[in-house]
Amino acid sequence: MSVPQLVAVLGRGVVPAGEPVVSADDLGINRGDGVFDAVRVVADAGGVRVDHLAPHLARFARSHAAMGMAAPDLDAWRGLIDAALGAWAVPGTAILKLIATRGQEHEASAPGASFLTITANDSPACPPLRVSLVPRGYASDAFTDAPWLLGGVKSLAYAINVAAAREAARRGDDDALFVSSDGFCLEGPRSGLVVRFGDDYATTPTAGTGILDSVTVGVVADGLRARGVRFTPRLMTPGEVLDADGAWLLSAGRGACEISHLDGSPLAVDPGASALLRELAGF
Amino acid sequence: MSVPQLVAVLGRGVVPAGEPVVSADDLGINRGDGVFDAVRVVADAGGVRVDHLAPHLARFARSHAAMGMAAPDLDAWRGLIDAALGAWAVPGTAILKLIATRGQEHEASAPGASFLTITANDSPACPPLRVSLVPRGYASDAFTDAPWLLGGVKSLAYAINVAAAREAARRGDDDALFVSSDGFCLEGPRSGLVVRFGDDYATTPTAGTGILDSVTVGVVADGLRARGVRFTPRLMTPGEVLDADGAWLLSAGRGACEISHLDGSPLAVDPGASALLRELAGF
Repeated sequence: MSVPQLVAVLGRGVVPAGEPVVSADDLGINRGDGVFDAVRVVADAGGVRVDHLAPHLARFARSHAAMGMAAPDLDAWRGLIDAALGAWAVPGTAILKLIATRGQEHEASAPGASFLTITANDSPACPPLRVSLVPRGYASDAFTDAPWLLGGVKSLAYAINVAAAREAARRGDDDALFVSSDGFCLEGPRSGLVVRFGDDYATTPTAGTGILDSVTVGVVADGLRARGVRFTPRLMTPGEVLDADGAWLLSAGRGACEISHLDGSPLAVDPGASALLRELAGF
Repeated sequence: MSVPQLVAVLGRGVVPAGEPVVSADDLGINRGDGVFDAVRVVADAGGVRVDHLAPHLARFARSHAAMGMAAPDLDAWRGLIDAALGAWAVPGTAILKLIATRGQEHEASAPGASFLTITANDSPACPPLRVSLVPRGYASDAFTDAPWLLGGVKSLAYAINVAAAREAARRGDDDALFVSSDGFCLEGPRSGLVVRFGDDYATTPTAGTGILDSVTVGVVADGLRARGVRFTPRLMTPGEVLDADGAWLLSAGRGACEISHLDGSPLAVDPGASALLRELAGF
């Protein structure tokens, strides 16, 4: 690997990186029919630790349930994570990713792939982001009473998210922000949105919009509220975000990255708020 | 395997079925970031043949292009397909599936997985289908000028298609038919829609709707037109389909399956037209 990576398989433990671990009949590779979650690992003089593992494992289990998959054996996953962290010796930050698929397509008795990767984070810094607005095609209430659309589920079927990031790069930007067909900001392809209006903060609501319930947004929201700051889920237009006092894309891998431009128009940049959000996210 | 399956890897040839062929870092398993195509294989006293391979390979190449992936080496794929067909000895029908992923996530120099499967078709018959109408969340023009939504691309990110089929089963039906947010029939999760109105036939248009350009619908359309029958792409509401003179879900694996019920309401069944469509599809 050009980037250090560790691979471990549930029931087997650590295996050589690069060794194939998914069969041709697996529903994960055939249909994107499986789930994942991702969380930051920090390795320093104090040892190796994982950020907010409990809410990430809880979301991993919710993703299983939303897909109609059998519940994951979280004790077994915790054991595998412990073994993997014990074998991880790369200083700095890394991303721990858990992947579980529904099963094999034609062999009902055989399990799906269940494995994790730990990959060194070669770009942990978070420069100001130029962000493209990218239509998502769905209305902001399209996911109400439509669980088959898998709103909020971290499924393996992320090709549109990757394509949106490619579209942003094609436009010369660093990242994308999805916009609903009725004109509201949703989320980034791999991040959640937080916006500051004066002393208040807001994020996109999860209900109906299909966006992911971001663990990092939740951690920051808890931190702000603990300081007496108002943090409210509400739908926001791109115009409202442009006129706001700061906007950020939050993710487990990079913390809070401030948006400097939206479709080329500059946003208010707020170094003090950026520092606060990064600190609350644990970065 | 409970169902006979052959696996072959591009550059390697036939490998033992069940052997892992996809690495943990592959973008196909991590993001559904890859493409596939599927076509029927028939093995009988006359030998082993593949239906309509040329248009399926052409679509496979179009899917690569739409995803911004490097063009597939179709000569190499044809060689692998020949080798696989030569090793396939199960009489009856089967499904040949080609899968290619974008690459590895963290090792730019390593290729993605490229393999095929041939899987015996254990349910080639096509009984009348009870079909659930399942909202797709997108308007019928949502894919106009939005290539990042991957309309018409057979990407590996099929989790919503699988979930829609599960939703239909939950309602006691056999299959699903997606409906746009503005109330038009789109396609099945793994099939295209053909409807008969008197002497004319119609199908959902591909432009703007994001539906797949079905090879089987195209083959049937060509056959009907060669007989002087009018075949027109146009948007149809569920009410129009219910009042029509027959409706079918078409796919490479099963040919033309007549819809007997839509959300529990019976449709006109037309055995003569069903026989014609099956014959034109090569079934």
